[in-house]
Amino acid sequence: MNMKERALELHRKHSGKLNVGVKTPVKGPEDLSLVYSPGVAEPCKEIAVNEEKIYEYTIKGNFVAVVTEGSSVLGLGNIGPSAAMPVMEGKAALFKLFADIDAIPLCLNTQDVDEVVETVKRLEPTFGAINLEDISAPNCFVIEERLKKEMNIPVFHDDQHGTAIVTAAGLINALSLVKKRLNEVKIVVNGAGAAGVAIVKLLLSMGAKDIVLCDSQGAIYEGRPFRMNPLKEELAKQTNGKRIEGSLGTVIKDADVFIGVSAAGALTAEMVETMANDAIIFAMANPDPEIMPVEAKAAGARVVGTGRSDFPNQVNNVLAFPGIFRGALDVRATEINEEMKIAAVYAIAEIVGTHDLHEDYVIPSPFDERVVTRVAYAVSKAALASGAAKESDVEKGKLPV
Amino acid sequence: MNMKERALELHRKHSGKLNVGVKTPVKGPEDLSLVYSPGVAEPCKEIAVNEEKIYEYTIKGNFVAVVTEGSSVLGLGNIGPSAAMPVMEGKAALFKLFADIDAIPLCLNTQDVDEVVETVKRLEPTFGAINLEDISAPNCFVIEERLKKEMNIPVFHDDQHGTAIVTAAGLINALSLVKKRLNEVKIVVNGAGAAGVAIVKLLLSMGAKDIVLCDSQGAIYEGRPFRMNPLKEELAKQTNGKRIEGSLGTVIKDADVFIGVSAAGALTAEMVETMANDAIIFAMANPDPEIMPVEAKAAGARVVGTGRSDFPNQVNNVLAFPGIFRGALDVRATEINEEMKIAAVYAIAEIVGTHDLHEDYVIPSPFDERVVTRVAYAVSKAALASGAAKESDVEKGKLPV
Repeated sequence: MNMKERALELHRKHSGKLNVGVKTPVKGPEDLSLVYSPGVAEPCKEIAVNEEKIYEYTIKGNFVAVVTEGSSVLGLGNIGPSAAMPVMEGKAALFKLFADIDAIPLCLNTQDVDEVVETVKRLEPTFGAINLEDISAPNCFVIEERLKKEMNIPVFHDDQHGTAIVTAAGLINALSLVKKRLNEVKIVVNGAGAAGVAIVKLLLSMGAKDIVLCDSQGAIYEGRPFRMNPLKEELAKQTNGKRIEGSLGTVIKDADVFIGVSAAGALTAEMVETMANDAIIFAMANPDPEIMPVEAKAAGARVVGTGRSDFPNQVNNVLAFPGIFRGALDVRATEINEEMKIAAVYAIAEIVGTHDLHEDYVIPSPFDERVVTRVAYAVSKAALASGAAKESDVEKGKLPV
Repeated sequence: MNMKERALELHRKHSGKLNVGVKTPVKGPEDLSLVYSPGVAEPCKEIAVNEEKIYEYTIKGNFVAVVTEGSSVLGLGNIGPSAAMPVMEGKAALFKLFADIDAIPLCLNTQDVDEVVETVKRLEPTFGAINLEDISAPNCFVIEERLKKEMNIPVFHDDQHGTAIVTAAGLINALSLVKKRLNEVKIVVNGAGAAGVAIVKLLLSMGAKDIVLCDSQGAIYEGRPFRMNPLKEELAKQTNGKRIEGSLGTVIKDADVFIGVSAAGALTAEMVETMANDAIIFAMANPDPEIMPVEAKAAGARVVGTGRSDFPNQVNNVLAFPGIFRGALDVRATEINEEMKIAAVYAIAEIVGTHDLHEDYVIPSPFDERVVTRVAYAVSKAALASGAAKESDVEKGKLPV
């Protein structure tokens, strides 16, 4: 069987991938009377008096909703909420397999921003955190921003921040290898969708000074008279200080770093040849990257990463989101803030030890078992340090600080 | 430890009662590439072309949301959505333990009818059925009616119909024991909340002719000038044909059947003494019934049922909802209609064989393992016969018809 047939067979065999289990032993009527009526009234009464007890007596603290409205699913586009179900179930499975988090898919049959926001808000009592998934730009920015503001549990759009965090981790290591500094290099980000925007914002907050963001119309600069929107205007103020105009082919000249979240073939060998020495390239278009690694290397690139598992340096979100949610949930963080994201970046980067670091190993393997624990630890510490979580909320002994 | 301490201990020990598992084997990177990207794109594409395939490739067909807004939780009243979580988790656990249905709690932080309706509707792509739970009257009637009309998956408010179905099953057997007929007996239902209203409606659709429904103001009759609402007006047209006025003490005279979903002590021994011979009493107030069984028997009652497990003839919803949902899901019914409910009533009643039937055994034990299978079978057959499900939707071999 080929991949397609095997994938369909696997999904068909069990009718999906998740199930729900009962983790408390139920051996007979007496156990049932504790799990359900009348015994169950006792934790209800405790929570009614002190709402925080919901974390002690229910699954809320380890329960995550993977929410989509199906507008931008994988590389398939706007296929709607029903067709998005297999991906959301798969994502929930990754939460379980990598971080022992109980996650479920929630596919909403509305793509109206206000309706998505109010629906997710109304689910707040049930979940410990919300993972937004496969929501297209620019709606994803508005939805996440509003939910972060209006909810008291972490809300995280993985397509934005997961990708940004892993890319940044790889970049930190690649720069270390070529002995350049983040605040000195010229970075070109190609693609102004969910991931591109998040990458720019994260790199800025980590200290990058010289970033040029390109969309399909070329470099974005302050006051560009075409194809702008409030978000691009805002980013234009913080990037492209020299107001360089022109296509990717123009702005890529002398760049130290290319980060592509755009489309296959967007970066040519000729463009790579114009980049600075020891060029670093993350070409993450899926399934075919902006440039194939062998071609980029031949044109002078020193480090190349892609989104694919069959090339070195795979930018795989599974390096980030399981540990980030694990860390946030462990300390009952009320949000996943910039400090926590940056902590995750460095935790992922540090998995690759200085001795092991080389061109083909700037990003750890997604199956490196140290990743989740270290990321979770770093994120939970950052949550406490930044005020996203309170020491007093942390159960004694649970956080390995 | 007493019951309270044991219940709290059980809930605290595991932080709640449910977990999410991955039912497809994931042993390494290759399995992952089928469960998630890139393989997961294949079922997505199939569903995008034919939405019905969601039942084949995802958990939707066995995935149930237990939804509440916390307005009427157990006997605790309006304790809100957070404090309702332990009950909804417990209910989900019962779905799993009794019918292998994957169910999760969804506690909504709105008690506005329109907002509850639109929130649940937006979740339709994800779930195979909706179990409404612990929503107070009269909102529960409006919410259920609208959701049934506006959604294409079964919506079932268990506090109404679960109770009604099990009560009706017990009543069928009790009447058989005393050799009376449903269409000839006088039935008094005390309590016009969710369960009381559903019981009246179900008994009417099963053929009962003489029912008097009482609320806290006594008998409800057409044109009663106080404490009426549209629902009571509607029921008044179908019940109490003689327009009897007065308190329960007045209307209970010569009744063959008393069904109480009201409050402890509502039925006195003196009232029972005025009932017809071989009186049948279901006194389901919790935790203390309208009259204690020993007292009712002493006053002349022949059959007495309650909501309690420590007395005979327990009216326990777990006899109904697991099999009803199992049957509805097995044939992908689009609703749970009157025919399916009545099929469940007779399936439950028939578990008690004619030879075993006696005063203290008109309702089967909730732990009788035949119940779920038989109820599911009857319900799925009724779904097909009534048009709630189509033969063509039924996977070959899945339905044991």
